Amino acid sequence: MDWVYINEVAKHVGKEVEIKGWLYNKTHKGKLWFLLVRDGTGIIQAVAFKDDVDEQTFENCDKLTQESSLKVMGKISEDKRAPGGYELQVHKLEIIQVAEDYPITPKEHGTTFLMDHRHLWLRSSRQHAILKIRHEIIKASRDFFDNRGFVLVDTPIFTPAACEGTTTLFETDYFGDKVYLTQSGQLYSEASMMSFGKVYTCSPAFRAEKSKTRRHLTEFWLVEPEMAFFDFEDNMKLAEDHVTYIVERVLENKKEELKVIERDTAPLENVKPPFPRISYDDAVKMLQDEGIDFEWGGDFGGTDETIISEKFDKPLFVHRFPAAIKAFYMKRDAEREELALGCDLLAPEGYGEIIGGGQREDNLEILLKRIKEHNLPREAFEWYLDLRKYGSVPHSGYGLGIERTLAWICKLKHVRESVPFPRMIYRTTP
Amino acid sequence: MDWVYINEVAKHVGKEVEIKGWLYNKTHKGKLWFLLVRDGTGIIQAVAFKDDVDEQTFENCDKLTQESSLKVMGKISEDKRAPGGYELQVHKLEIIQVAEDYPITPKEHGTTFLMDHRHLWLRSSRQHAILKIRHEIIKASRDFFDNRGFVLVDTPIFTPAACEGTTTLFETDYFGDKVYLTQSGQLYSEASMMSFGKVYTCSPAFRAEKSKTRRHLTEFWLVEPEMAFFDFEDNMKLAEDHVTYIVERVLENKKEELKVIERDTAPLENVKPPFPRISYDDAVKMLQDEGIDFEWGGDFGGTDETIISEKFDKPLFVHRFPAAIKAFYMKRDAEREELALGCDLLAPEGYGEIIGGGQREDNLEILLKRIKEHNLPREAFEWYLDLRKYGSVPHSGYGLGIERTLAWICKLKHVRESVPFPRMIYRTTP
Repeated sequence: MDWVYINEVAKHVGKEVEIKGWLYNKTHKGKLWFLLVRDGTGIIQAVAFKDDVDEQTFENCDKLTQESSLKVMGKISEDKRAPGGYELQVHKLEIIQVAEDYPITPKEHGTTFLMDHRHLWLRSSRQHAILKIRHEIIKASRDFFDNRGFVLVDTPIFTPAACEGTTTLFETDYFGDKVYLTQSGQLYSEASMMSFGKVYTCSPAFRAEKSKTRRHLTEFWLVEPEMAFFDFEDNMKLAEDHVTYIVERVLENKKEELKVIERDTAPLENVKPPFPRISYDDAVKMLQDEGIDFEWGGDFGGTDETIISEKFDKPLFVHRFPAAIKAFYMKRDAEREELALGCDLLAPEGYGEIIGGGQREDNLEILLKRIKEHNLPREAFEWYLDLRKYGSVPHSGYGLGIERTLAWICKLKHVRESVPFPRMIYRTTP
Repeated sequence: MDWVYINEVAKHVGKEVEIKGWLYNKTHKGKLWFLLVRDGTGIIQAVAFKDDVDEQTFENCDKLTQESSLKVMGKISEDKRAPGGYELQVHKLEIIQVAEDYPITPKEHGTTFLMDHRHLWLRSSRQHAILKIRHEIIKASRDFFDNRGFVLVDTPIFTPAACEGTTTLFETDYFGDKVYLTQSGQLYSEASMMSFGKVYTCSPAFRAEKSKTRRHLTEFWLVEPEMAFFDFEDNMKLAEDHVTYIVERVLENKKEELKVIERDTAPLENVKPPFPRISYDDAVKMLQDEGIDFEWGGDFGGTDETIISEKFDKPLFVHRFPAAIKAFYMKRDAEREELALGCDLLAPEGYGEIIGGGQREDNLEILLKRIKEHNLPREAFEWYLDLRKYGSVPHSGYGLGIERTLAWICKLKHVRESVPFPRMIYRTTP
C-alpha cells in the first residue's frame, strides 16, 4: 500500500493509502471515531466505523492521546464537510507510540511555558503556519536575486573587526585568540560585489544588544544584496521590488497558512510600488507634530518608527539621515554634507524597520577620513580600503531582516515566534 | 543608452549599449586597442579604433591598468573569434578609477599571499568560477528539498550543549554566560521534523578542530535534511538522489565555469544511482588488503577515506560503523548490536567524506542509556528526550558539507578555495 502525504491525497481519491503521522485531535460518536491526523503537510479526518475495522483498530482509536504517533490505512474520499475537503475511511490503525500527558493542550499557556517547550510548541498549527511562511519569504528572496543574476556569497561569521560599532559584539575564543561574530556581511559583500557585479548573502547575524523589546533577537537572519554601479535611488527601487515580491509570493503560495493565523490580508494586498519616500527631516517634523519631544539629529527608536509607519498604509522609506548617527562607510549627500545617503524601510501597521541600507562611500581619501573620525583601527580595514584602490566603483546595498519581515507579514506580537528556536538576552534554550 | 550586463549582450547585437566594469587585460596594435572588460557576469572584448573614437577615449585606453574601473559605450557585434563570441566596437570610454599596481598579476603567487589578498583574489577567473559553482550547489540543494515538500528550518547557532562531543566547540561569551556555536543543527531538526514531517537546514556550522588538513575549515556550511518515518535505507536513497541532482545541475548550468577551472567532467558524468554500498567491515578489509595497519573498531582518517574512495568511480556509502565511534543518538543495528545504523558518503577521486548520517534512536529508554554511556549531562537533553516521549517515530537524516562537495566537484587541491573568506586554525583574515 502506498504511503502518501496528506497534502497529496487529492491524487488518491478512491484508493487505499497509508498515512503516517500524529493524532491532532479526536471525537467519538457511538460506533464512530473521528480522528484528526497531522503529518506535517496537512491535517486529515480519519473516520473509523466499528463494523468496518478489526477490534484492535477500534481499541487503538480509544487509546490514542494527543500527539500519539500512528499509521492509518484506508480509502480516500472527497468530503466537502471535512477539514481540508478529504476524508480517510479507516480500515486499519496501528499505534507507534501513545504519548502520555502532552504538555501543550488547547487551553491557554503562558509565554514562558510555551518558550520552554518550544521544541513541542512548533507542532501547534499557528507556529507551523508561521514557519512555513518564513520558508516562503526566504525562498522568495533567494529566487528574487537568483532570477536577477545575483551571485550568492556566504560571507564569514568569524570576523576580526566590528562592522557596526563595537558595543554589541559577541566575542568568541578562537584557539586562544579573540574573534567576533558577524553583525552583517556587508564589508565582505562589497569585496565580492567587485568580482561578481551583483551579490547577495542569506546568513545568520549576531548582535549582543541588551534590548528586551518585541523586535530584538541576538541571533537573526539577514538577506544582504550589494550592487556595483547602483546609486542610492537604484538601491531603493530594488528594495521596493524585493519587498513587493516577497509579499506577492506569500499571498499567492501561503493562503492556507495566512488563514490559520487569521491574518487580515487587505493591508498586504496594498503593498505595491511605489512606496512613499520621506526624508529624515520630514519624519522628524511628523514626530514633532505629534507632540513627541524629538530633536533633529537623534536616531529613531522603536516607538518613533511605530508612530511614523502607522501614518502610512504601505512600507515607506525614510532617507538621508544625519551622517553622525550612521556607519562610517555611508556616502554623504553631495548637496548636504551633514546627511548620509542611507535609507531605512519601515513596515506599516506599526512594525518599523525591516531594511537598512544605502550608497557606500567609494572614495579612498574620504573613507580614510571617516575611519579616523569614527576612531576605528585602520589596520583592520586595510583590505576594505583596497576595494577603493583597485577599480573603485559607485555601489549600494541593503540588509533585510527576515524575522522582522516575517513578524510584520504575519502580524506577530513578538519577534520570538518568527524563528524556530529564538535567542534573546535571557533565552538560549531549548 | 542602455546599460547592459555582458551575459546579455546577445540580445543587443547591432545596438549601442553601455557596459560598466573593470579592465581584465588589454593589448595594442597600431591604431587598435583590444580591451578585455569584465563586469562579473562575463568578459567581453572591446575594440577601440583610433579613427572611430575621440582623442580622450583613445588616451583613456592607454591609461587603463589591470582592474581599473570604467564605462564603455559602443555597438555590439557577433564575432566568432572573440572570447564569448561577441565584441563591442568602442565609441566612447570613460575611466572611473585607474587602479595602480594591482597586487595580483598573471604571474604565479604563493598561497599565503593569495589568502592575504582573498578580497582581491576573488576577482580571478578561477576563483570566480568556483564560487559560481558553489552558488549552483546550494541552489540545487534547496530546490531539491523544496521540490520534495521539505520545510526549511533555520536551527540556532547559539546552543547550550554539544551535539558531537565537547572537545571541538567554540565558546562564546553570552552576557556573562557561556554558549557554544553549533556543530550541527540535527537535534533541533529532529524537533522540527516532528512538526513538519520533512525538514532541512542550510546553515553555517563550526568545529574548533585543530586539524590543518586540506579538508578542514573551522566555519563551514551544512545542508541537513531530517525525515520522519524514513529508515536507514530510505535515508541513503535520498542522499544518493540529492548528490546526483547536485552534479546534474552543475553539469547542466555551469558548463562555462567547469571549462574555466579545466575540470575533466567525465568522472562527474558518471555520478548516477545506484552508488555502491560497502559495509564498514568490508571497508576495513579493503584497507588491510592494501597493507594498511588498520584495526576493526577505529575511525577512518582522511588517508583511509582517500584509499577507499579511489577504488570506486562513483560516490560510495560506507555503512554500519562500530557504535563506539559514533554519536549517542545513532540507532543500533537490530542484527548486530555493536553496529550503528550510520552511513558516510565518500566522494570519488580520493575526496572522501561529504555526507554523514543515519537512522536516529527513537526509543526513550535506549536513548537515556546512551546519554549515560557517553557521560552527557541529561538535563541538557531533556527537551530532546521529550521528542521520544510525545509521539516518537522512526526517523533519519544526514548532513552534507557544502565546501567538501564543492572541493570534489571542482577537484580543488584544498578546501580553502571553496568559500569566499575561509576560516581555518591560523586564518581569520581578511
